[in-house]
Amino acid sequence: MLLDELDTPALLIDLDIFERNLERAYAYARRHNLRLRPHTKTHKTPDIASRQLRAGAAGLTVAKVGEAEVMLSSGTADLLVAYPVIGQRKLSRLAAVARQTRVTVALDSALAARQLSDAACEHQATFGVLAEIDVGLGRVGVTPGEELLALVQTIDRLPRLEFQGITFYPGHLKMQGEQTDQALVNLGHTIGECSGLLRRHGLDISIVSGGSTPTLFRSHLVAGLTEIRPGTYVFNDGNTVRCGACAWDDCAATILTTVVSTARPGQMILDGGSKTFSSDRVHAGEPGFGRIVEAPACVFRAMNEEHGYVDVRSAGREFRVGDRVRVIPNHICVAVNLHERMYGVRNGVVEVEWKVEGRGKLQ
Amino acid sequence: MLLDELDTPALLIDLDIFERNLERAYAYARRHNLRLRPHTKTHKTPDIASRQLRAGAAGLTVAKVGEAEVMLSSGTADLLVAYPVIGQRKLSRLAAVARQTRVTVALDSALAARQLSDAACEHQATFGVLAEIDVGLGRVGVTPGEELLALVQTIDRLPRLEFQGITFYPGHLKMQGEQTDQALVNLGHTIGECSGLLRRHGLDISIVSGGSTPTLFRSHLVAGLTEIRPGTYVFNDGNTVRCGACAWDDCAATILTTVVSTARPGQMILDGGSKTFSSDRVHAGEPGFGRIVEAPACVFRAMNEEHGYVDVRSAGREFRVGDRVRVIPNHICVAVNLHERMYGVRNGVVEVEWKVEGRGKLQ
Repeated sequence: MLLDELDTPALLIDLDIFERNLERAYAYARRHNLRLRPHTKTHKTPDIASRQLRAGAAGLTVAKVGEAEVMLSSGTADLLVAYPVIGQRKLSRLAAVARQTRVTVALDSALAARQLSDAACEHQATFGVLAEIDVGLGRVGVTPGEELLALVQTIDRLPRLEFQGITFYPGHLKMQGEQTDQALVNLGHTIGECSGLLRRHGLDISIVSGGSTPTLFRSHLVAGLTEIRPGTYVFNDGNTVRCGACAWDDCAATILTTVVSTARPGQMILDGGSKTFSSDRVHAGEPGFGRIVEAPACVFRAMNEEHGYVDVRSAGREFRVGDRVRVIPNHICVAVNLHERMYGVRNGVVEVEWKVEGRGKLQ
Repeated sequence: MLLDELDTPALLIDLDIFERNLERAYAYARRHNLRLRPHTKTHKTPDIASRQLRAGAAGLTVAKVGEAEVMLSSGTADLLVAYPVIGQRKLSRLAAVARQTRVTVALDSALAARQLSDAACEHQATFGVLAEIDVGLGRVGVTPGEELLALVQTIDRLPRLEFQGITFYPGHLKMQGEQTDQALVNLGHTIGECSGLLRRHGLDISIVSGGSTPTLFRSHLVAGLTEIRPGTYVFNDGNTVRCGACAWDDCAATILTTVVSTARPGQMILDGGSKTFSSDRVHAGEPGFGRIVEAPACVFRAMNEEHGYVDVRSAGREFRVGDRVRVIPNHICVAVNLHERMYGVRNGVVEVEWKVEGRGKLQ
């Protein structure tokens, strides 16, 4: 099928850019001896996960049990659930996954560890476990130090759990330049202190897992890190450009839209809003819900559920009802989750159509 | 199934409140001799649409052709597409719908009217048409006056289109109290001028369609209005409460979540974020991504894709990992669109499970 035959709105993946993004991340990881375990939340599509694995990824990361189930068909031998799994129903399902492939779970409470061990025993499964530490985001994760030690000692005593190491999410370290670099170096010191403390208590660490897309290509500054799990890097998006981690030309995902109204002078209305792009904003105070590829000077100033309001006064060209324009979303992970399908495009031809199988797998 | 057996996150509909919301809207419409053509974008579920029809609705409204296709199974005899439909592929599909039930389209450009007429001729269908006017939102819609006249004259001349009247969206008139009332009265004057102008040119208006949930129960103030098409009223949400159109007790939809981490003092993390609730905020500057039913004094202060950050320092109670709490979302229409299923609950029992069939029907 030709790109021109696709109806709108449609989520397009530029295959050349996508493949380059995969290669670049793996080349970086290999150069710095880091294991690449990409987070699949961005694409939620087993076939794309398979491509990541073929391009050098050593395993996959998911956030939810439903995503883990979906990712089985990627053929991965190694799944990390980077999310505390709470409750018997989910844990039974995860144990079923763990009987098919290696599953590691990140957690931050003794209760989560006990529940995981109970499920492992009941279903004769085994789980790897990473203890999550909070390195400043203030989300999940215990405080490095005595809290971490107590958690790891609990994990270590529980049957059918294999303590493997520590994990953290450094996504808040998005400031550009030297500030970020210094924060990453400091993170290495924290990790060193954690592993030292655990080692003095006879607890070995084999995995130190961190790394987000914003800090992806600076991960080597974190001493002791063994593994990175970026998600967004496969496609990139407006936020990734804005935090300095890629250029606009590295954004593989765009949403093809149609102009449906130009009734108001100086404005065009696109056939996509918060149900197509999500209402994720860029940094507080900055305007814009996406970048218009054909006229980047335009401001995508507002949206409702199905309407995108674009101020075209700086466009340098005219737009008419029926024109098609492509938009780079602010946050591709939430945008993908709104689409049933993605279309892989090269040279104006739709080479592949992907069903977003993990979409809406909230449990 | 018992509510306690449902895993989280899960979208719950309190059936008592839901049924009361349906009855209240129809009673109001009947009292004021207004036709009720509810917008199904809120629930995207044919069975709920059928219940609206049984509860007095005279037809249904949709935003997209894909939603129109899905809503055929509700058994409606009357569908309004309140959105300009542009492009041959969509129009062919809509013509197929129009051969099964009566379809009316709202539009604001001569091009949209010509394309619609072409599709009607090609597929031997007939479309009703409403001319959309802009009453201040600045989204779609021509300016009342000469622009409207020119558009309606175009529609009137085109084959297989039946001009029926005018439509507008007054959703921006959300200010509480007398200001809103005065704006609605003024809207009546605008409508009077529009119909007068068209009548003087021999163009009859039989439908004047407007009305959103925020202004629902003040619609009688708009002289000349014949039809309302509220959407959110079936469930209501935080935004509807905040604009004064309902009380918290009228919110039928809540999202059941589980506390997955309390590692940081004064905070709990829920197993839902922007992929569960959407990132829609309340009015600019006001904090909060949802109301915690069990402890309304808590502040749902931040979210990532799968994490909800709740400040529990004002909760007046303790929360532990594994506790379940319900959240009233800010904007239920975008939240529903993120869920595969909704669960209708009464007295702690799940009476009905709905598949959100129109979810992600973006085209």
